[in-house]
Amino acid sequence: MDDRTYTAAAEPGETVTVAGWVHEIRDLGGIAFLILRDTTGKIQVKFEKDEMDDDLVETGLGVHRESVVAVTGDVEEEPRAPTGVEVTPDSLDVVAEADPELPLDPSGKVDADLSTRLDNRTLDLRKDEVQAIFAIRAEVLRSVREAFRNLDATEINTPKIVATGTEGGTELFPITYFGQEAFMNQSPQLFKQLMVGSGLERVFEIGPIFRAEEHNTPRHLNEATSIDFESAFYDHTEAMDACETVVKAAYEGVAENCQDELEALGLQDEFEAPEGEFPRLTYEEAIERINATGELDEQLVWGDDLPTEGEHALGQDVGEHYFITDWPSEIKPFYIKDHDDDEQLSTGFDMMHPTMELVSGGQREHRYDHLVDGFEQQGLDPEQFDYYTKMFKYGMPPHAGWGLGGERLVMTMLGLGNIREAVLFPRDRQRLSP
Amino acid sequence: MDDRTYTAAAEPGETVTVAGWVHEIRDLGGIAFLILRDTTGKIQVKFEKDEMDDDLVETGLGVHRESVVAVTGDVEEEPRAPTGVEVTPDSLDVVAEADPELPLDPSGKVDADLSTRLDNRTLDLRKDEVQAIFAIRAEVLRSVREAFRNLDATEINTPKIVATGTEGGTELFPITYFGQEAFMNQSPQLFKQLMVGSGLERVFEIGPIFRAEEHNTPRHLNEATSIDFESAFYDHTEAMDACETVVKAAYEGVAENCQDELEALGLQDEFEAPEGEFPRLTYEEAIERINATGELDEQLVWGDDLPTEGEHALGQDVGEHYFITDWPSEIKPFYIKDHDDDEQLSTGFDMMHPTMELVSGGQREHRYDHLVDGFEQQGLDPEQFDYYTKMFKYGMPPHAGWGLGGERLVMTMLGLGNIREAVLFPRDRQRLSP
Repeated sequence: MDDRTYTAAAEPGETVTVAGWVHEIRDLGGIAFLILRDTTGKIQVKFEKDEMDDDLVETGLGVHRESVVAVTGDVEEEPRAPTGVEVTPDSLDVVAEADPELPLDPSGKVDADLSTRLDNRTLDLRKDEVQAIFAIRAEVLRSVREAFRNLDATEINTPKIVATGTEGGTELFPITYFGQEAFMNQSPQLFKQLMVGSGLERVFEIGPIFRAEEHNTPRHLNEATSIDFESAFYDHTEAMDACETVVKAAYEGVAENCQDELEALGLQDEFEAPEGEFPRLTYEEAIERINATGELDEQLVWGDDLPTEGEHALGQDVGEHYFITDWPSEIKPFYIKDHDDDEQLSTGFDMMHPTMELVSGGQREHRYDHLVDGFEQQGLDPEQFDYYTKMFKYGMPPHAGWGLGGERLVMTMLGLGNIREAVLFPRDRQRLSP
Repeated sequence: MDDRTYTAAAEPGETVTVAGWVHEIRDLGGIAFLILRDTTGKIQVKFEKDEMDDDLVETGLGVHRESVVAVTGDVEEEPRAPTGVEVTPDSLDVVAEADPELPLDPSGKVDADLSTRLDNRTLDLRKDEVQAIFAIRAEVLRSVREAFRNLDATEINTPKIVATGTEGGTELFPITYFGQEAFMNQSPQLFKQLMVGSGLERVFEIGPIFRAEEHNTPRHLNEATSIDFESAFYDHTEAMDACETVVKAAYEGVAENCQDELEALGLQDEFEAPEGEFPRLTYEEAIERINATGELDEQLVWGDDLPTEGEHALGQDVGEHYFITDWPSEIKPFYIKDHDDDEQLSTGFDMMHPTMELVSGGQREHRYDHLVDGFEQQGLDPEQFDYYTKMFKYGMPPHAGWGLGGERLVMTMLGLGNIREAVLFPRDRQRLSP
């Protein structure tokens, strides 16, 4: 059935069948044009009313916008046509007639708010600039996977239905699992750690994570795509090296393979893959620099978490991707290892885009006793995590890794105003369908 | 930290640090060997007791099996060593001591039942033949993604938290979503269809699906990996072509890139990528051939679903991957289109491995009125699916696609006896952790 010619491939001198959506109809009187759109572009179909069959003209010009049609005809050069060619139809078949009233205008001439767009994603994605986001998202995932394989990491898939959360119960969605209480997993953290102790040693996973966070902001999702990496025999500095490599690979993949999409988004001139090493600031340097900006009402002191305005001030100051290292242990999760020579100092790190946090990582605590103590200090029952901790008794190497927010990567790369623009069908407190 | 040399890369004449797990210690009296294992293989570490520091000998030979150690020393040729080289240690560091009692023997000398293996996946995956399954699984996903991209399909991710199931409520896991009832998605079916009506036109997704099926069998999982494909302007025969291409690509990728892994599984001689076209049998031919085998107690008649024994009998008869086409409409889901010239006959198809069903697909119903009727005939309220059906009013092209069970693909490819062997952490009625 799909023996059609893509509009972008229609060459003068050929007889083709093109099929797609009716983008626009321009009736100039004796002559009229139907602009047909498919995934590769648009093509002009010419109707010379006096010289063509009346039925054909009536069908072609009477069809509603966004209907699906198939047109067979000769392709000719026409410098005045948008793509330099046009089709003179011999026949036109209305494959799927669209309602005359559309909930959203795919030509983009009428603006729609984000909520209307998300309610009508199918129509929304007929716009070049929206389609471009998801083509770029796919390229990001492709190039990230390739970068992981170049690092000798094996792709894994870990369960999304779990008996216990990674960091306790506050942000978990409960499931009824054959009469038992279970949860949707908020992170593959514990599972990927179990894999570095196996013969795989170095692993990555790209998959959904679920967080029952109450806040509805332009940067949070309740279902997101997490890009996770973990390696045996890595320390936090090597994990940061790997992180830099993978993030750069995503940018480079897009720069190399998505020029048309960047153009559709108007980013062809400003898009740049980051070069050079990402600066590595200690937490201490970070709060000093934030304080020095004078942007905060109150000065930060050691032990404070970085407020959003602080991240913004520092991001503007640094002006490129950067790491924050050596955090106070007390504000990093218990499974992150402290520095051997200073228990107050964590090997945890964040990797930041100038506008927001993208990555959280660190070297992990691999010593069984310390790990069990950590659960207790966090107020969690180590017994409940026995399936995880017990493997640390059978030869668990030192290891490090990180998790990268897939949507945040796309959002910051393209300068999107809302993280929901980087997800086909976002989930938030209010939005459960489509 | 990971400045170690992989065991497979240790060359005679070098001084190296190798690190990994203590696979075995063989004490022959005056001389003893520690076999060290890492992700690339094994290497022999030689202890000549009289010529070496007592502490070094004591530490090296006193360490428990499966402990993590780092050994620095000179590599020398030694034809009698398993890999032709051995290391004479200058120092040995016990990085993570293992308990002397292991719940499972990673050397494979003591058999463990599947349940014990799954409870201790970290240890289980230290076995070459188990590790090989997951290296192959990763290659299957890599080559499948590449095949999809060669078909110009865009990778998408659709939500796993949904307001309504694809085919109604019987096999859904309920979630509490901010006080609302929601479900874990059992298939990306409806979402991928919404995308063929968008500018993307052709899409694929590889992600988790969740089915609250009660039956516990060696071929069912409650959380599985679905490989989904959907294309605008395809009919069912083109969808079958794409299916064949993708499944062959998976086999070819493994044949090309996983020879060591196939050897670890003892499959190096018998593994073959399927060649030629997969035979396409109609449902009518299928039941005739099953009846002719005489394997069933009762003869199948038109309208019967194929029982498992029937699939086995037919699979043995056909002896290779094959399609079953032209099913009775009444036993295929409502969203599958019937043949235009015979409403009793569905365009749905299954793709079968000789031992079990791998793929289910078909051309989809793209006509709004027919689709809404279908929901009603299935006993579903079309209103609840309005987010999906309404998009069919705005120019939905004809389209077709399919879903392939990722674990079943790996299971049948490698002849595994239980689908759980193809999942790191399987989920079934009884198993919710690890």
